[in-house]
Amino acid sequence: MKTYPITELQNVKIHGRTKMGPDFLPLFWNNSGVEVNCTGGELWIDLEVDSAFYEAWIATEINGAFMSRQMLHPGSQSICLYRSMTNGPVKNVKFFRELQAMGNMEKTILLVKGLRTDGEFLPVEDKPRKLEFVGDSITSGEGTYGATEDTEWLSMYMSSSRHYANIVGRNLNADIRIISQGGWGVLCGWDNNPSCNLPSVYDAICGPSIGDFNVRLGTQEPNDFQAWKPDAIIVNLGTNDASAFRQPAFTDPVTGETFQQRMNPDGTYVAEDLKRFTDAVKNFLKQLRKDNPDSFIVWVYGMLGYDLSVAIAGAVSDYQKETGDFRTDYITLPNTEADAYGAHMHPGYPSHVAAAKVLTRYLAEKLG
Amino acid sequence: MKTYPITELQNVKIHGRTKMGPDFLPLFWNNSGVEVNCTGGELWIDLEVDSAFYEAWIATEINGAFMSRQMLHPGSQSICLYRSMTNGPVKNVKFFRELQAMGNMEKTILLVKGLRTDGEFLPVEDKPRKLEFVGDSITSGEGTYGATEDTEWLSMYMSSSRHYANIVGRNLNADIRIISQGGWGVLCGWDNNPSCNLPSVYDAICGPSIGDFNVRLGTQEPNDFQAWKPDAIIVNLGTNDASAFRQPAFTDPVTGETFQQRMNPDGTYVAEDLKRFTDAVKNFLKQLRKDNPDSFIVWVYGMLGYDLSVAIAGAVSDYQKETGDFRTDYITLPNTEADAYGAHMHPGYPSHVAAAKVLTRYLAEKLG
Amino acid sequence: MKTYPITELQNVKIHGRTKMGPDFLPLFWNNSGVEVNCTGGELWIDLEVDSAFYEAWIATEINGAFMSRQMLHPGSQSICLYRSMTNGPVKNVKFFRELQAMGNMEKTILLVKGLRTDGEFLPVEDKPRKLEFVGDSITSGEGTYGATEDTEWLSMYMSSSRHYANIVGRNLNADIRIISQGGWGVLCGWDNNPSCNLPSVYDAICGPSIGDFNVRLGTQEPNDFQAWKPDAIIVNLGTNDASAFRQPAFTDPVTGETFQQRMNPDGTYVAEDLKRFTDAVKNFLKQLRKDNPDSFIVWVYGMLGYDLSVAIAGAVSDYQKETGDFRTDYITLPNTEADAYGAHMHPGYPSHVAAAKVLTRYLAEKLG
Amino acid sequence: MKTYPITELQNVKIHGRTKMGPDFLPLFWNNSGVEVNCTGGELWIDLEVDSAFYEAWIATEINGAFMSRQMLHPGSQSICLYRSMTNGPVKNVKFFRELQAMGNMEKTILLVKGLRTDGEFLPVEDKPRKLEFVGDSITSGEGTYGATEDTEWLSMYMSSSRHYANIVGRNLNADIRIISQGGWGVLCGWDNNPSCNLPSVYDAICGPSIGDFNVRLGTQEPNDFQAWKPDAIIVNLGTNDASAFRQPAFTDPVTGETFQQRMNPDGTYVAEDLKRFTDAVKNFLKQLRKDNPDSFIVWVYGMLGYDLSVAIAGAVSDYQKETGDFRTDYITLPNTEADAYGAHMHPGYPSHVAAAKVLTRYLAEKLG
Repeated sequence: MKTYPITELQNVKIHGRTKMGPDFLPLFWNNSGVEVNCTGGELWIDLEVDSAFYEAWIATEINGAFMSRQMLHPGSQSICLYRSMTNGPVKNVKFFRELQAMGNMEKTILLVKGLRTDGEFLPVEDKPRKLEFVGDSITSGEGTYGATEDTEWLSMYMSSSRHYANIVGRNLNADIRIISQGGWGVLCGWDNNPSCNLPSVYDAICGPSIGDFNVRLGTQEPNDFQAWKPDAIIVNLGTNDASAFRQPAFTDPVTGETFQQRMNPDGTYVAEDLKRFTDAVKNFLKQLRKDNPDSFIVWVYGMLGYDLSVAIAGAVSDYQKETGDFRTDYITLPNTEADAYGAHMHPGYPSHVAAAKVLTRYLAEKLG
Repeated sequence: MKTYPITELQNVKIHGRTKMGPDFLPLFWNNSGVEVNCTGGELWIDLEVDSAFYEAWIATEINGAFMSRQMLHPGSQSICLYRSMTNGPVKNVKFFRELQAMGNMEKTILLVKGLRTDGEFLPVEDKPRKLEFVGDSITSGEGTYGATEDTEWLSMYMSSSRHYANIVGRNLNADIRIISQGGWGVLCGWDNNPSCNLPSVYDAICGPSIGDFNVRLGTQEPNDFQAWKPDAIIVNLGTNDASAFRQPAFTDPVTGETFQQRMNPDGTYVAEDLKRFTDAVKNFLKQLRKDNPDSFIVWVYGMLGYDLSVAIAGAVSDYQKETGDFRTDYITLPNTEADAYGAHMHPGYPSHVAAAKVLTRYLAEKLG
Repeated sequence: MKTYPITELQNVKIHGRTKMGPDFLPLFWNNSGVEVNCTGGELWIDLEVDSAFYEAWIATEINGAFMSRQMLHPGSQSICLYRSMTNGPVKNVKFFRELQAMGNMEKTILLVKGLRTDGEFLPVEDKPRKLEFVGDSITSGEGTYGATEDTEWLSMYMSSSRHYANIVGRNLNADIRIISQGGWGVLCGWDNNPSCNLPSVYDAICGPSIGDFNVRLGTQEPNDFQAWKPDAIIVNLGTNDASAFRQPAFTDPVTGETFQQRMNPDGTYVAEDLKRFTDAVKNFLKQLRKDNPDSFIVWVYGMLGYDLSVAIAGAVSDYQKETGDFRTDYITLPNTEADAYGAHMHPGYPSHVAAAKVLTRYLAEKLG
Repeated sequence: MKTYPITELQNVKIHGRTKMGPDFLPLFWNNSGVEVNCTGGELWIDLEVDSAFYEAWIATEINGAFMSRQMLHPGSQSICLYRSMTNGPVKNVKFFRELQAMGNMEKTILLVKGLRTDGEFLPVEDKPRKLEFVGDSITSGEGTYGATEDTEWLSMYMSSSRHYANIVGRNLNADIRIISQGGWGVLCGWDNNPSCNLPSVYDAICGPSIGDFNVRLGTQEPNDFQAWKPDAIIVNLGTNDASAFRQPAFTDPVTGETFQQRMNPDGTYVAEDLKRFTDAVKNFLKQLRKDNPDSFIVWVYGMLGYDLSVAIAGAVSDYQKETGDFRTDYITLPNTEADAYGAHMHPGYPSHVAAAKVLTRYLAEKLG
């Protein structure tokens, strides 16, 4: 068996936004990973892992079929991706991160050092389409694993393996990327924390992952939008912004400043707060367009309720009127049925399947 | 057996907007009909029917289950709704029109004269919810019957029996009404005919049905919005307005005036024409609200494509901002899957089932 | 429009066992009917109908899609199969009986006299496969229409339109025939009536339909097994034979003789009675084979429980050993799920769909 | 954290036939494992693993939901079953073997040494029902993982996590055991190897696992049938016996003796060979009954074709006649649909779901 340092490996397809390190490839985001076409009878991946409370989870697919899913512990280690196979025929193998990018409170570091095999690596073609999914806990796959009575916020309940993005990608023969943060919104987090907004982290390689170690890995460097141009960007945000209206004000522990999206006594949203939200939607569309001049952008919403449906769509409409950019759209996805919830009252796997069905039909028509 | 003239029958639930005549009850709209709880061993309905090219079709449900569907021919006639049953137990029977309201080119008259039974009629309770569906050919059930290769525009392909409104009504234990016209829009018809808009006919009992005979039946009289107050109005319009943008101008055969919704060379909609459409959406919402001050109103869209999704939703948003009326909403329904089309490239029964599933989940939550 | 007497019509495909009369075609069995390829803009069928308690029900399919279903009343009459269509293109139309063959207590006569059209009739090709279904109430489609709370034994609850045989025929592009009697078995009826067995009526055109009028129509004449040779015969019997073991003895009202299939106190079947049943299975297989030397024969069982599964299959096995005829088989169909019952505690439409799925897969493999 | 040696742990439910060792619990069979109710915030399992070509795979379920699945490598090791959870509340955790018992060519040893937690273990109640599944590769879950183009015979394609037995157990709230060997039959293996028959290994704890090490673990000791009495035994055998008829003779490499189940030139089975098979079925039923006097026994068949359906059922029937033991039955399961195959042309997960649906309905009725 020969070891191929990741930094020297030609025939590897890298999934997800990242920046190659001196002798490692960091996997920051949900569904980030490496994909190879390997002729060997055996294939191993060498990893460097670090974590504390939130351990890393990874999954593998062989020839496009889900094969394994496991927790990783801190330390240098090798994972066998397959073995005892016939040497010669090509096996397509994808190794990817299940856990979303982790932020300031916690580091969950997953570095690919290299691959080892007794065969060789053949080129992995790009798929004919590229899709980028931007979202919150739904798009972090929270609840795609776990029993409905499980309500803690833990690594193991998140995935990209049983995930609408993964299913849509398979259905449409597309490479996918996921940019998501559970609890975050387009304006603020579920608890009115105004820092928890995706736009603020979208331009960097992995904006949410701060702290010295992450920063040294390059998370805060600008993402190279030329290197991977999605045919479509699917934005699935607004669910936490809707929650915020029902939560108390957030107080910044450092500055003492507060932030709150407010409801009127009659249950409607306070107009200026709603405008703050719709402005955030419009501004995010502008930002996405600046970064991705050629991509079709569709905002999707509804897997956990439709509270801000009109507000979001109205903002998309206003954006279209202001900018003349009609390569943008808005649709709703089916709300999670009562028997389709997973852990933590999040959409379970059947709900992701239902959403993927609608999105597949939609994108197939839009992308031709 | 005793004959009960419809005008004297107490215990009958009348479905659909109508006006009782001197000795008959006209069934104008799709799903209009009569429902009874009959103890008799046998039950007949006496009808007066007239039609030319577009014959009437009717269907029956017994104890809530679909039982029959047939074409009617002109003339006085009796239809047996059931027979040979045990006299005594209550049978719930609904007789209803499958064909949408027919307009100026054609009359399809269906009058209920009375019912005949050897038993008696017990009261039929109103269901705990009332739902009104306003739409186009989708809501006229076009394509819910017929093979996918059938492409003529004929009575037999329309229904309310295999219809998303019917399924939602059953799921939510709701009485339903349907107000729909195939080919019509909220601003204009699929062919840019500006007369073919639902708002212009919504206020009358059955606006589309003109001509002397229909008018004498009361179709142009104002609908009594006090008499039947829907908990929710589901507006499923925009599909034909989207078509219009791809069609040549419509020329009024009488005035010679033309009307056209235009596209720019780049495939976007001409701004003023789009505004004309979104104004129509807003104005229709105002009209619906005026007529139905207490109803929740949701605009749904997408079973035949999402072209105007943002435009419609933006208009709903603008309406909300202008009026402060937030008891309005917008969601999309799943586009018809490739294998779910029925006759005339319209949503087939499986597509209606899929739409009904999303709407049931949505309305169950909204209506509590 | 021109009238084509059924006796002179060349291009008609006749479904179901029957015997052409001097100026009519009787439709005896469930799914018996006529199928034409008509170029006319309009098509009518002329009928002669008679019935008393159990009225006839019929259904139509246009281009293979279900279109209508209605009750018929006694008398001469015309039914419009379609109208207002474009003259020229071919429309495939099937008109067929929903109600099973009716027996001695009751006549339900349905005679096709002719067809009327403004077009012409083109040949209707035989489908590449032929399937014959022999059964009881399940195969009479009892419960495929009607609410689950409906428990009377009435014409309207039976069908061949929402029927596993119809679905299998469509799936496999096969012409189908149905020979069935509700309540009957292979040895005796559900109530131990030993006359109610399918073997005794299988050889004649329509054995169950006795009485002077039926006999004059030819029901008791031998069926012409050369004229229609099924590729496969699907026997779905045993459900009523199983019931008989739990019922009191049947007393012949004329002879006073009694008949009973008995259970032992421990709930097993009395051996000699079980043998009587398994002999009946073997003998029926011999009879079927004599009549249909070239057909594959599969006994299916289970849509209403598996009580006699081993007994039936053991008899098929014994038959194979005795005769060396291995072109016979036995499989079970899925039992009706709790939410899939129709009227009268019989398999509803979803149960027929589930059975058809298993049978389609099975027959596709067996028939190649 | 405290370590609880498996030999001293009271509150553990052991799944699968096994024999506690001096300081370990061997997991021999598919779905064998340990289940605990743990209050700790963290839970680890200590293992001793050995394998060569066929590595062990394991899976976990937390609170009844699938959580992880991974390959194990030789050596002593700890697997974290969960961590970072709230200390106090009970978490139900099941750790189980995915790979079937491995035989003479290969050892795949999986020993549980103990569990480690910072909490305590509460009792795990037996479920109200017990089900034992006896079968071949279908029951070894071969093909429940892997792409349809994967055709090697490897550990990773087998499972008990996406398995009809697992689904039925969940549906019926039953504890399950699996006794299965891929390629084996009731008389002989797919290749006519007469040693590859389940009856020969059924009576021992884990008959197929020979070799010194396995024997020392107790695999060849008699199973304690008093200790775990299944309410029902589901035998899913015959698929490889059917294959054998189409394969060349097997020659014993040691004795040179040959064995072959033969076909006649007309495609039927040679009578004496078929009898050899049916005798094996009967004898296995006798053996099962001797070992399990109180269990209901149902032979199921068909997920990979129905070739021996009548032969098996006939043998069950003969067994019933000979013994009077009617607490036995025979049903077929749906054949795998064309789009439901998994790896190695074996039933994929959707096929297991379909089989589980039929079996659930069946057993729910039989077991009351």
